[in-house]
Amino acid sequence: MRDNASMLNPHFQKLQTAYIFPIIERKLLELQKDHPNQKIFNLGVGDISLPLLPEIAKAISDATYQMTQEPIGYGPCGGYPFLKEIICHNEYAPFGVTPDEIFISDGTNTDASSIQELFDQQTTVLVTEPTYPVYRDANLIAGKKVEFLQLTEKEGFIPRPPKERADLVYLCTPCNPTGVTMNREELSHWIDWARQNKSILVLDNVYNAFISSEDIPSSIYALEGAKEVAIELRSFSKWAGFTGLRCSYMIIPKQLHLEQLNQLWAKRMDIKTNGISYPIQKGAAVCYDKSVKEKLQNQVAMYQKSSIILRETLHTLDQTFFGGEHSPYIWWKTPSQKNSWEFFDELLEGSRIISIPGSGFGKQGEGYVRLSCFVSPSLAQEAAYALQHHFAAV
Amino acid sequence: MRDNASMLNPHFQKLQTAYIFPIIERKLLELQKDHPNQKIFNLGVGDISLPLLPEIAKAISDATYQMTQEPIGYGPCGGYPFLKEIICHNEYAPFGVTPDEIFISDGTNTDASSIQELFDQQTTVLVTEPTYPVYRDANLIAGKKVEFLQLTEKEGFIPRPPKERADLVYLCTPCNPTGVTMNREELSHWIDWARQNKSILVLDNVYNAFISSEDIPSSIYALEGAKEVAIELRSFSKWAGFTGLRCSYMIIPKQLHLEQLNQLWAKRMDIKTNGISYPIQKGAAVCYDKSVKEKLQNQVAMYQKSSIILRETLHTLDQTFFGGEHSPYIWWKTPSQKNSWEFFDELLEGSRIISIPGSGFGKQGEGYVRLSCFVSPSLAQEAAYALQHHFAAV
Repeated sequence: MRDNASMLNPHFQKLQTAYIFPIIERKLLELQKDHPNQKIFNLGVGDISLPLLPEIAKAISDATYQMTQEPIGYGPCGGYPFLKEIICHNEYAPFGVTPDEIFISDGTNTDASSIQELFDQQTTVLVTEPTYPVYRDANLIAGKKVEFLQLTEKEGFIPRPPKERADLVYLCTPCNPTGVTMNREELSHWIDWARQNKSILVLDNVYNAFISSEDIPSSIYALEGAKEVAIELRSFSKWAGFTGLRCSYMIIPKQLHLEQLNQLWAKRMDIKTNGISYPIQKGAAVCYDKSVKEKLQNQVAMYQKSSIILRETLHTLDQTFFGGEHSPYIWWKTPSQKNSWEFFDELLEGSRIISIPGSGFGKQGEGYVRLSCFVSPSLAQEAAYALQHHFAAV
Repeated sequence: MRDNASMLNPHFQKLQTAYIFPIIERKLLELQKDHPNQKIFNLGVGDISLPLLPEIAKAISDATYQMTQEPIGYGPCGGYPFLKEIICHNEYAPFGVTPDEIFISDGTNTDASSIQELFDQQTTVLVTEPTYPVYRDANLIAGKKVEFLQLTEKEGFIPRPPKERADLVYLCTPCNPTGVTMNREELSHWIDWARQNKSILVLDNVYNAFISSEDIPSSIYALEGAKEVAIELRSFSKWAGFTGLRCSYMIIPKQLHLEQLNQLWAKRMDIKTNGISYPIQKGAAVCYDKSVKEKLQNQVAMYQKSSIILRETLHTLDQTFFGGEHSPYIWWKTPSQKNSWEFFDELLEGSRIISIPGSGFGKQGEGYVRLSCFVSPSLAQEAAYALQHHFAAV
């Protein structure tokens, strides 16, 4: 008989043991206990802070009541055509993406962590460092060979193609956690590199609504050759407030040099999922109604305003930071060479601001904290005053 | 450089190439084209045919509008405590299952196909034949060693523990596709076997609402020792009409002989998912309100009535069949030794009844068709007349 424990997937042991969120949670509770009347400014988790638009709620509610009139059961595993078509029309019309290249899912976490299933066990996966941890951890537990591309302050945390090839490369732009975006030229270098190396790029582009420069493409498919090498991940979470509703999608072009990927993913979805909730898909579709879209753009503009307030404050305080311009995240270099957790503690105790220690995103994140700007401008302003006050006192 | 195609997961090639549903779809369209005015009786896919209860729609709608008043973002990856607690209280109170042993997900397909990720690549997976194809296919594409336990007419399609051990065993009771259920004694044999062999049983129990005998446990945890060896899968799909809404759950006891599985699954969910939609979880919770539960029981009773009509008809026609008693599926042995597809065609052309060819569930399913009873009693009665008429003419 096999040893009992040897049945377990050994790759889980490769994960870092200490998760940062429970530690943050504990520190926050301690502060609240000691100072119950102090206001806390949560610039930690990148979650929306504005309520859902009533028009979206109505679409979800209407679809749910529709189900009381006619049975609506299993939908297509990869999403309803009505949603795929509306996404195509609104997001991808200039780039010639077709509905059968779009796969609807319950979240970019799911997509980013599952796409590796289409690749064999010898696949080398290149992940930036710092990184959104899911790319790294999902590939580690799947037993894939994970390699790291070190991002540095000197290069403004922009990922540059390495000399060695890799089969699969995860890129995030606008980037979580650094807030940095890649422009046309920088992305084109990656496309050229991937074409030469027969690599596949997995581009996490869930913050594209925050882009406000012509020089930064809203989709990688705006660039020549991208359809040969790139899978793009998008979500309704951040621009439409769907973090609690769950709706995302992934583009797998049929022109990929690994042309089987589109069909393999369709097959994988047929086997392992039954699609996402019908009312939620109806709610996602209504986001493209003209008036709804405008309101959603206003919500993003509000988060952007908070981002400007925080960036200007850090600038006034003579701090070094990245991002926050086409992204809801500010990547703040800790002053006086403090490590991430030391500065996290200082911000929490000195300014009642919750940040995320950069070391939680890999060792290249040490010496940084991430601020999330998903807050109202008035809260951002209060947090800014608290920062100014604290730095004046230091 | 690696050969391009060698990057692909080779295990997808182990899948059967021909899927049955597109073939069924094509045959149906041909019939409708040739005989546009004929009524078709769809006893194929096991999908609900009754509309959603208004109380459930209201709970989902209310929760969605609540999100317009206060931002409700990311929830706990494994589900909200309010839902876990209500499931515990209503389904598992007598068996001592605790909320931290319950993991909410978007479907039993997801759970059944993903649980294997916790096991190493040498894991042997035992799957019955005939089988719900997801167990087999998800394990095949993950590169696990899949072995088959042949179910036979002689043993009434009841799975019996084999001589050889296996690490992981998938069992489905009430069974899709055979409609057969395992009683206390039969399940206890599996528990004893798993304890001796240090195996883990994955018990798919999504049809438990159809059980109406004291001798058939509604949960495997009603049996001694089950918590040491069994993971149980449940769903809101079939008893509460959630196939289009998506809400399921999995019980991973902390007392399993592989006690790490509970924590590993929690970790895996934290990495790879962001939980399911908040309003859908609210909709699931309301299913346990006394009046809602009664109405849902009446819906199941209606499907059961259809099942009785179809069983009695087959009995009158002197047909050999299994299941349909504590299950919505009838497993019908084809008359005159026809193969599954031949008899599928005969039923479609002769009685306008859509069935599922048993061969779609593995080679032991050859010579059978599956009838689904998720229809109204009046439709079942019409289908029954069509059958009687056809058999009188044959």
